[in-house]
Amino acid sequence: MAPTTTTAAAAAAAAEQQQHTTRKVLGLAAHDASGHLTPIRISRRNTGDDDVAIKVLYCGICHSDLHTIKNEWRNAVYPVVAGHEIAGVVTEVGKNVERFKAGDSVGVGCMVNTCRSCESCRDGCENYCSRVVFTYNSVDRDGTRTHGGYSGMVVVGERFVVRLPAALPPDRGAPLLCAGVTVYAPMRQHGLCEPGRHVGVVGLGGLGHLAVKFAKAFGMKVTVVSTSPAKRQEALEGLGADAFVVSTNASEMKSVMGTMHGIINTACASTSMNPYLALLKPKGKMILVGLPEKPLQIPPFALVAGGKTLAGSCMGSISDTQEMIDFAAEHGVAADIELIGADEVNTAMERLARGDVRYRFVIDIGNTLRSD
Amino acid sequence: MAPTTTTAAAAAAAAEQQQHTTRKVLGLAAHDASGHLTPIRISRRNTGDDDVAIKVLYCGICHSDLHTIKNEWRNAVYPVVAGHEIAGVVTEVGKNVERFKAGDSVGVGCMVNTCRSCESCRDGCENYCSRVVFTYNSVDRDGTRTHGGYSGMVVVGERFVVRLPAALPPDRGAPLLCAGVTVYAPMRQHGLCEPGRHVGVVGLGGLGHLAVKFAKAFGMKVTVVSTSPAKRQEALEGLGADAFVVSTNASEMKSVMGTMHGIINTACASTSMNPYLALLKPKGKMILVGLPEKPLQIPPFALVAGGKTLAGSCMGSISDTQEMIDFAAEHGVAADIELIGADEVNTAMERLARGDVRYRFVIDIGNTLRSD
Repeated sequence: MAPTTTTAAAAAAAAEQQQHTTRKVLGLAAHDASGHLTPIRISRRNTGDDDVAIKVLYCGICHSDLHTIKNEWRNAVYPVVAGHEIAGVVTEVGKNVERFKAGDSVGVGCMVNTCRSCESCRDGCENYCSRVVFTYNSVDRDGTRTHGGYSGMVVVGERFVVRLPAALPPDRGAPLLCAGVTVYAPMRQHGLCEPGRHVGVVGLGGLGHLAVKFAKAFGMKVTVVSTSPAKRQEALEGLGADAFVVSTNASEMKSVMGTMHGIINTACASTSMNPYLALLKPKGKMILVGLPEKPLQIPPFALVAGGKTLAGSCMGSISDTQEMIDFAAEHGVAADIELIGADEVNTAMERLARGDVRYRFVIDIGNTLRSD
Repeated sequence: MAPTTTTAAAAAAAAEQQQHTTRKVLGLAAHDASGHLTPIRISRRNTGDDDVAIKVLYCGICHSDLHTIKNEWRNAVYPVVAGHEIAGVVTEVGKNVERFKAGDSVGVGCMVNTCRSCESCRDGCENYCSRVVFTYNSVDRDGTRTHGGYSGMVVVGERFVVRLPAALPPDRGAPLLCAGVTVYAPMRQHGLCEPGRHVGVVGLGGLGHLAVKFAKAFGMKVTVVSTSPAKRQEALEGLGADAFVVSTNASEMKSVMGTMHGIINTACASTSMNPYLALLKPKGKMILVGLPEKPLQIPPFALVAGGKTLAGSCMGSISDTQEMIDFAAEHGVAADIELIGADEVNTAMERLARGDVRYRFVIDIGNTLRSD
């Protein structure tokens, strides 16, 4: 048998195999940098031995989704089916799966695989694995492209699935899978979770409003620092912050100078860190969870003189995520959302682009994603 | 009695009181921004109830001394008697002093007083008290100006004096009081003290060489990162570093990328932190103990993607200092010094200005400071 025939036969066998091991699933995809989303049929692998098949009920819209579908990070491989704040229900599990069974309420966040062997994976901070496989627009370890929660179902390895307690409403819980753990994990890691301590939250959007809620649940004093005076009332009355200062108002900023044990900085617009670092007490810590496009400007004295810390943080580990979800369910923390239908997603993206959302769009996938 | 007479009488009484409560002490002072040092007679208060009077034996020359005597920080009030790496022997103690007695070997570092009531003072990190009184070129709480260890004796409150164990040679121990604790305290605070971990030391000068020694004493793997290829041999053979990379050599830098748990950055010349942050593992920490003049440039991604930390640190607390001194004595850590006479101090300053010292000048005050 000639080599070429062998190759053709192998390819045919692989194609047949592929056909038998995948299913077609409806999704919403962007096809170019316009970011316009339209229905699409995508392939999902059949449920493997370690897999959990999940019917998607709700999926939050993260600002990362918008960056990716418009290719603003220059890494989009179209078609892109975004979505990494996924709440759903288990429909089927592989034979090795022990923690979940059909009917369980579950969630999936930003990642669906990692190398599982590096130091970060071994130490339980697999969110920093250099070979992390993101929930969408990524390449899984089997070579297939990943597609996210803007779709009717997902198939995810058990290790990357978390349990959603009954006390957590799944629509308002979905945004916790990314936005929630992104602020919760560094607050825990850096000790910004002790009752009576004073924390500042810079920026009051999807991440910021959850930082306020978690900080209050920890028993902390919370001051919101925002560029928008219009957000004062919602920060104080709606979210229960203890104080609100406008970052461009020098006297308001001065009034809280040197008073904060920590700051969660969710803002992406400002790159001058000095005004925020000045709000910290000695040995205070500012955690950066946003990604401003330009380099940060930091006078060394602002860090050295008071022994202050500037730390970055990205997502959270799976154990962080489960801990955060359990904490949220216990303390009544959930996102403030605008629930939309699948047919409203393009309008929602336009509104998100101009910051017009309080505080997270969530797509009602389960009830509204249909092929017509 | 007229008010003016009262005032004059009070002033006279105060002057007489002052005369009775001070003594004249020989020192080396800068009188202008030339920084040239000449002998001077300064006043020291008599030993108060809480004071320790110390005959100065050795005083290290810190780069801060050079900055101050040349008024490079724009805060010099002449005459300036510098010196905050003081090793000496107790000559007299006040009646309330419990920890020291005449004849004890003691040290004094960067500060001689603080407010004693703020959160930092209460929490044992009085080095971050906003009203810290530095050992020289500062104003003490009684309104007098402070003068440092380039002088025959100092009078310091018991709280700001540390004990020097017999195992620590006082000449090589003197630089630990500033340079030593400046690197030791953040290494302990940030967990860069665990055996087997990999730490980078950026800059191999007074601070850097002690960071290498402490890191090796902690049992860590140490890589020196330097701009000077000429320092390779002394780093590896003289100081016992495990590896040496030249920061401008891309392939050498690449060879240690992502391998370090932490970095002690003692360099003041570079403000681009990105190349160093790239050497850190995920969740790694870089501690900045130098003060570059210009703002640091930090791409947010360099911190956020790996959950990395950039922290400043300044000096150490008194308890940090005592702990560091005891650790150094136990593990044989001491500065590599060039011991000079008081008459050589101006030449030493010129050499220090061009980085020509291995690694710390120490003035033999006890044997060489004389009025002639």
